[in-house]
Amino acid sequence: MINNPIQNIKGVHPPKTSVGLTKMHALAEVAERLFTQTSFFEVSVSDICKAAHTAVGTFYIYFETKTDIYRYLVADYQRRIKRSLSQSIAGCTTRHERERAGIKSFVRFSVNNPNVYHIVWGSLAVEKQLFVDYYMSFADSYARALRTDGEELTSEDVMSLAYMLMGIASFLGLRGMFENMTDEQIDTMVDGTIMPILQNGLFQPPAGLSL
Amino acid sequence: MINNPIQNIKGVHPPKTSVGLTKMHALAEVAERLFTQTSFFEVSVSDICKAAHTAVGTFYIYFETKTDIYRYLVADYQRRIKRSLSQSIAGCTTRHERERAGIKSFVRFSVNNPNVYHIVWGSLAVEKQLFVDYYMSFADSYARALRTDGEELTSEDVMSLAYMLMGIASFLGLRGMFENMTDEQIDTMVDGTIMPILQNGLFQPPAGLSL
Repeated sequence: MINNPIQNIKGVHPPKTSVGLTKMHALAEVAERLFTQTSFFEVSVSDICKAAHTAVGTFYIYFETKTDIYRYLVADYQRRIKRSLSQSIAGCTTRHERERAGIKSFVRFSVNNPNVYHIVWGSLAVEKQLFVDYYMSFADSYARALRTDGEELTSEDVMSLAYMLMGIASFLGLRGMFENMTDEQIDTMVDGTIMPILQNGLFQPPAGLSL
Repeated sequence: MINNPIQNIKGVHPPKTSVGLTKMHALAEVAERLFTQTSFFEVSVSDICKAAHTAVGTFYIYFETKTDIYRYLVADYQRRIKRSLSQSIAGCTTRHERERAGIKSFVRFSVNNPNVYHIVWGSLAVEKQLFVDYYMSFADSYARALRTDGEELTSEDVMSLAYMLMGIASFLGLRGMFENMTDEQIDTMVDGTIMPILQNGLFQPPAGLSL
């Protein structure tokens, strides 16, 4: 949770004062904890307010409904993931380096924020469109970024590449979360196995074509 | 839903008669429809029984709790996915062919069964261990199969490969589901973009090393 509120989320009204922001963030943190301990559907607005020591009326200043605080949590993960990705690739000069750094950064994020799967994938059950928008917008911006580095790539079908690469990062992140991987284990997996495949392929070259 | 009941699911007691099986499958079909229309947590056993025109007592012959019918749905998807994969690779003679057929089969399955994401990923919210077991057991059997074809592969780290390939198939399936892709579109995506990358890599070879 960072101090700069996300604008333009349907049903979410970020306050202008820092006291208000602190209250809003406290509500969101408590909501995430309760939603992931049990589920979105078993937690009420009044449960959230009780656990956050906040009046129910205050909740409705920031969030129109319980679904809107969930929408905020998804948007906040999206923003934190994008920020963590863009920080990790800041010094990179090639797409190859950006993919390496991006995959590692996402796996680390998953290990450090295991609730991300619960919140993002769980959005399918809360409001399917939220889930669809999350991944379609992620795929769009990934595909745009890949197009920018198109001369490094072997394919121009950047939308398929975007889904392929999101899938790789998401499932390596899942493994990282299951196994609570260390940074060293993540580096070994990505540097030792995944990047060589993205560089040279998964399969042995056909006989007679080896370099 | 097929007629052969899955054995050994905790809290699930498949009947021995075909009349019983029909009733059990009807309950499961209705439960899936209701769970995906709203959510697991907003649907009661009595809602399921009412919609299936079945007495509540009958439900409890087959399923000990509402969570157990969800567990059955996840296990049934796992079985159907594995069956569809093994049918699709039946005539294949190399790992390359098996991966091509397997990815296509999974994307088609996702287009034809869009609820699979809701049920499988939604299991994170219903009972996290169910979700963890689903993917860890899938990864284990995938890694074993890859090891069998190890001489075709450029890496021996079959567990990382399993997660990478599960991620690719899952996210291409997600795209297939979002865009309601036709078989022809799926073939173009997999044959035109994904398999060449798994064969030769995502990135242009370094200068001086091109074939």
